[in-house]
Amino acid sequence: MAENKENLKMEAIVSLCKRRGFIFQSSEIYGGINGFWDYGPLGCELKKNVKDSWWKRTVRLREDVEGLDATIIMHPDIWRASGHAAGFADPMVDCKDCRKRFRADQLCEEQGLQLVKTATGFALPEGCKCTACGSTNLTEPRAFNLMFKTFVGPVEDENSVAYLRPDTAQAIFAEFGNVLSTSRQAVPFGIAQVGKSFRNEINPRNFTFRSREFEQMELEYFIKPDEAVELICGHVAKLTPETDLSEPQADWGWEIWHRYWVEQRRQWLIDVGLPPETIVEYWQKPDELAHYARACVDFEYTFPFGTQELEGIAARSDFDLTQHQVHSGKSMEVFDEQLKNAVAALDDAARAAFREKTVAEWVSRGKDPEKAAAFVDRLFEGKYIPHVIEPSAGADRMTLALICDAYAEEEVPNDKGKKDVRTVLRFSPKVAPVKVAVFPLVKNKPELYAKAREIFKTLRAEWNCFWDESGAIGRRYRRQDEAGTPFCVTVDFDTLENGTVTVRDRDTMRQERVTVEDLVRKIRAAVG
Amino acid sequence: MAENKENLKMEAIVSLCKRRGFIFQSSEIYGGINGFWDYGPLGCELKKNVKDSWWKRTVRLREDVEGLDATIIMHPDIWRASGHAAGFADPMVDCKDCRKRFRADQLCEEQGLQLVKTATGFALPEGCKCTACGSTNLTEPRAFNLMFKTFVGPVEDENSVAYLRPDTAQAIFAEFGNVLSTSRQAVPFGIAQVGKSFRNEINPRNFTFRSREFEQMELEYFIKPDEAVELICGHVAKLTPETDLSEPQADWGWEIWHRYWVEQRRQWLIDVGLPPETIVEYWQKPDELAHYARACVDFEYTFPFGTQELEGIAARSDFDLTQHQVHSGKSMEVFDEQLKNAVAALDDAARAAFREKTVAEWVSRGKDPEKAAAFVDRLFEGKYIPHVIEPSAGADRMTLALICDAYAEEEVPNDKGKKDVRTVLRFSPKVAPVKVAVFPLVKNKPELYAKAREIFKTLRAEWNCFWDESGAIGRRYRRQDEAGTPFCVTVDFDTLENGTVTVRDRDTMRQERVTVEDLVRKIRAAVG
Repeated sequence: MAENKENLKMEAIVSLCKRRGFIFQSSEIYGGINGFWDYGPLGCELKKNVKDSWWKRTVRLREDVEGLDATIIMHPDIWRASGHAAGFADPMVDCKDCRKRFRADQLCEEQGLQLVKTATGFALPEGCKCTACGSTNLTEPRAFNLMFKTFVGPVEDENSVAYLRPDTAQAIFAEFGNVLSTSRQAVPFGIAQVGKSFRNEINPRNFTFRSREFEQMELEYFIKPDEAVELICGHVAKLTPETDLSEPQADWGWEIWHRYWVEQRRQWLIDVGLPPETIVEYWQKPDELAHYARACVDFEYTFPFGTQELEGIAARSDFDLTQHQVHSGKSMEVFDEQLKNAVAALDDAARAAFREKTVAEWVSRGKDPEKAAAFVDRLFEGKYIPHVIEPSAGADRMTLALICDAYAEEEVPNDKGKKDVRTVLRFSPKVAPVKVAVFPLVKNKPELYAKAREIFKTLRAEWNCFWDESGAIGRRYRRQDEAGTPFCVTVDFDTLENGTVTVRDRDTMRQERVTVEDLVRKIRAAVG
Repeated sequence: MAENKENLKMEAIVSLCKRRGFIFQSSEIYGGINGFWDYGPLGCELKKNVKDSWWKRTVRLREDVEGLDATIIMHPDIWRASGHAAGFADPMVDCKDCRKRFRADQLCEEQGLQLVKTATGFALPEGCKCTACGSTNLTEPRAFNLMFKTFVGPVEDENSVAYLRPDTAQAIFAEFGNVLSTSRQAVPFGIAQVGKSFRNEINPRNFTFRSREFEQMELEYFIKPDEAVELICGHVAKLTPETDLSEPQADWGWEIWHRYWVEQRRQWLIDVGLPPETIVEYWQKPDELAHYARACVDFEYTFPFGTQELEGIAARSDFDLTQHQVHSGKSMEVFDEQLKNAVAALDDAARAAFREKTVAEWVSRGKDPEKAAAFVDRLFEGKYIPHVIEPSAGADRMTLALICDAYAEEEVPNDKGKKDVRTVLRFSPKVAPVKVAVFPLVKNKPELYAKAREIFKTLRAEWNCFWDESGAIGRRYRRQDEAGTPFCVTVDFDTLENGTVTVRDRDTMRQERVTVEDLVRKIRAAVG
């Protein structure tokens, strides 16, 4: 029953998105193409506002983060280094009877079953059926690489194979050295990128949530290894409930940096309009973590189709840069003068004690003692491969969460005192595609009309505005409610008398008369 | 001699772009990938400013243009309809001796020869050699499709083939109906898109100018066919040197609309900083035009490597929408109430005269009289397929032109009265990646330092700012000159006394003392 209601809500949202030009199916006139979605006039403004807000907060307002805009097609060795070429695969199952293909985990999940992990991969649990035809005549799960393949250059052969990037993060690692050497940054610092990524999902679903072409907003924030922090500061700060996360400190290790970014990202989610109580913070369990990851927090949102991940914040150690160092043969180490000086101040006994402690600690985490010793040797020269905290968000998921959260159907009294249902998108004014709509009360009074145009043009210089002169004012309000426009301004005969306009608030539906100057201040305060 | 100087200039620009983090080779640590370039910290801000300026002027400040953000991978039938699947090919030549591959036209051009057009394609002219090994043992030119191919879904076969879009325009045509029905626009109106496109160029060259992955800024502006304008207005306005192009008029036909967009686009090129005298306007000759195009103007810029196209503005008739109507089976016609009313006011004789005149005019252009008559029949019902004017610009080319135009090496006196060479990028403040840099005169005076930080934070809330506290002020200026930062602000002891700062102009190198309020006004006026 509850599920049915949620399904209906999702249908209503998809329908509104199409009807009002937020999101269309790609290539719809040719029957569509599964897993691809286009953003229409309102949708592309909304998504652009989300991305611009992320960029402003993550890059432009921070001195310690640099931007990058890398290509989608990169050298294929990048995906060998990252592990995507070998490991970025989903287990897939075919129905031998109806020939439909499924993602094995999804097929199981839909039947309340659990995919079985085996020594070499996966197996289907007892009783698993094809959800299309009901047959149990299914293949065993087989790995299917999710990267889209293409060929660069005129010859189609193994030497010309390249891939569309499945994430924007690897370009950041590949350009780490170039950014470091041109930007006058030193660790800790970050590199951010917004851009399209591609995954050849077997079963794209849930509207734009899981699509084959999507946009990511990723930050790789490079930090010193804890051992370097300890050498420099004499200790690594412990994360406690009292830790002040407002300003980064020199003695932070990965754990506090990770928590710092979790809180930074939460703030941004709230900033663009997700109510704090709707954000689910999920800490991945040790057995869910990638082998190189030390922690990963997902921020989830409860969509009508279920609670799903919007963003993950992972502490990925030095895995990625190390992989690229090994595969490219180019050093990814940084030289840290502070570290070098700190080490120079130690006597032999202190160094030996540090080495012993570090090796023991590495061994206790199952690592090779020789590698630990080599790491300490490099540290003593002031060198290390930075570790990284990775906040990775989906622009489409975020946009969809904002649409779902903004969507409401409300009973409101109409002109005749009866109840109407209005559909409203309660976007934060910061991301709303249109900030203000301007209505001349009537269109056949030239002076009034000209005044309304003048006000419209003033506002438009600063914000995305909409002009509407047709229909009753009530109808015009409803149109803007569906578009999520926070303010509607009506220019009437009083405007000509005293310069005031009526501004109507989308959420409260209250109207007030203000001067144009006050209106500008009001919008500016709301839009930020 | 002159050419050598230009080569050296281009080398200096490429070197500066790498050294200061404007543009890096993609995947450089893996040996690079030919034809792909990444934008570093300064480059991605510059390019983002170019794109945002285009979007603001083309979409947000216009009531008659809607935005779109469509996918890169679309249904492959789109490329059948557009002609790209069959025709989007370059003639290609292989050297049978050294096995290098060339674009036939480029190979000829490099030897001062001209590729020969034949009945079925192309042939090499007498004496054409391999420019790599000098052999004349070359294959005949063969067509090579420039679209990158991929496979959507888990099976790699002919049914799953899809392409990376070679332009952003076709998505606009494919979504024409959706945008029209959701946006409350009527012809004339436009749809704009900014996004990546991909062409598998055989010989990518000239830095970012001809690359395999690039970004376009395209507008499709839909207009009424001239015959509809004539029925509605009784005439079609003639383009004369006196035609006022400032405000669109109802009686404009394609020729004035085309010229209007040429002038609109020229204004934008000037707006983002290209000096008017550097913009070359090239009208394609009749034999250069695509068969469906009525006119095409290229705006060109003289790069160090030659005069090359930045943007084309084409009058493409109703070719594209008609193709999609034929291939998709979905109507691309609009209903025009004004037209319907105008036709209703005509008597039978007037209609017959109009029909006769129109058919005769079509026949004179080599068209089928039956198609002309059918077109008139539809017009009389108030229906037509809109014609289109297409301003199509390259974001990377534009960014490169701005870098080349901004680049200067100047002799300037140094502290000791001798001559130094300074490298400066004279970007328009509107697109400059960093708008203002803030320097504390010294860093060991806490009060002064704190004041400088306070000013920096004030400015950063509005603009992209850079903080620099190291080295002599003269050196800090030089760093910002190379980054193209228009203003440098020094906070010194007088600032603590009277609240003024020194602002230094990048281009004149003049310094003046202003209050912080005047500084903000000055930057705001320049950045716009």
